[in-house]
Amino acid sequence: MTGERNAGEERLARQLDFIREIDRLKSVHRQTLLLDRSRRENAAEHSWHLAVMALVMQEHAGESGLDIGRVIRMLLVHDIVEIDAGDTFAYDDEGYRDKAEREQRAAERLFSLLPDDQRAEMEALWREFEERRTPEAKFAAALDRLQPMIHNYLTEGHTWQKHGVTARKVRERNAVIADGSPALWRFAGRLIDSAVRKGYLEP
Amino acid sequence: MTGERNAGEERLARQLDFIREIDRLKSVHRQTLLLDRSRRENAAEHSWHLAVMALVMQEHAGESGLDIGRVIRMLLVHDIVEIDAGDTFAYDDEGYRDKAEREQRAAERLFSLLPDDQRAEMEALWREFEERRTPEAKFAAALDRLQPMIHNYLTEGHTWQKHGVTARKVRERNAVIADGSPALWRFAGRLIDSAVRKGYLEP
Repeated sequence: MTGERNAGEERLARQLDFIREIDRLKSVHRQTLLLDRSRRENAAEHSWHLAVMALVMQEHAGESGLDIGRVIRMLLVHDIVEIDAGDTFAYDDEGYRDKAEREQRAAERLFSLLPDDQRAEMEALWREFEERRTPEAKFAAALDRLQPMIHNYLTEGHTWQKHGVTARKVRERNAVIADGSPALWRFAGRLIDSAVRKGYLEP
Repeated sequence: MTGERNAGEERLARQLDFIREIDRLKSVHRQTLLLDRSRRENAAEHSWHLAVMALVMQEHAGESGLDIGRVIRMLLVHDIVEIDAGDTFAYDDEGYRDKAEREQRAAERLFSLLPDDQRAEMEALWREFEERRTPEAKFAAALDRLQPMIHNYLTEGHTWQKHGVTARKVRERNAVIADGSPALWRFAGRLIDSAVRKGYLEP
């Protein structure tokens, strides 16, 4: 950013390139509204919200003793690929068809801005999140699914209604919450039932 | 959120109240512009950006072996008080006069939404950040000061010029970066010099 560098500063320069590039995540918009309905949520502030959720809701993880630090790190980086790949709406079957491919290309470009060891570390975190095999990834995914459900409920089903999503579809698409947190899945079930009763969501 | 609860669900209900309340941090705007200059940055996405900076720039911390997980947790919560207290611009001497008092009241209200043990935990994290005594807090503060400097530099000194901030003031206000990271403070020095040369900043 400021001209001549010694060898040690080269790593910092690459890290700063990455930090500058990911500013664009603040302009990637999701379908979810903010709770005051003033605008759609962006993927950067969404990532922050999930990381704080992990911090305060870790006791509800399905497996005890999981590494909450890794959950938080995964949530911080999980959406960075959307800078290139865009946000894919949870109920967009069409968009899901080439989501993996688009995001893989994005991961390669974006994480390779970093020094090689860090590129590998970030890509591993992102891949762990996507694969949902470890307890940490399952809990991170549960939070990522739960947060938009809460926002939908508290905005009277705004996004569900806009896209004609039914309770059945919400249950299907979000059943992965159960793998990460039975307690949060029970809560989600009550939320869906209540949303149907209130007319926010079609049965 | 959904009516009747058993005793165990009471904790979850309080955590969800907190998670809902902090959505408002996404509407607290800072002086800093996004790098594409499309709008001002909000405090939630700013917190995310800093947490990722901590993750990729931890090797530049002044003290080795610091707990980067705690740095990240501090950065995730450090601005939550701004929901009530508002953002205080780094060069606003007037605003700094009652900043501590405003933020203390905000911390009391916001963190007490959580169960008591978590209220204490969050308040401790926030206070540790504010006091800047531990290596973790010093590094977190360094990142919190550096990020707006980078944004200012890359937007041709937008906020500096708008508020008539001089290079001398920037050096004074951000000297705490040196306590958290001598390497980042050397970088910041080069950034300031370059900003003066390019006319983004008055000497």
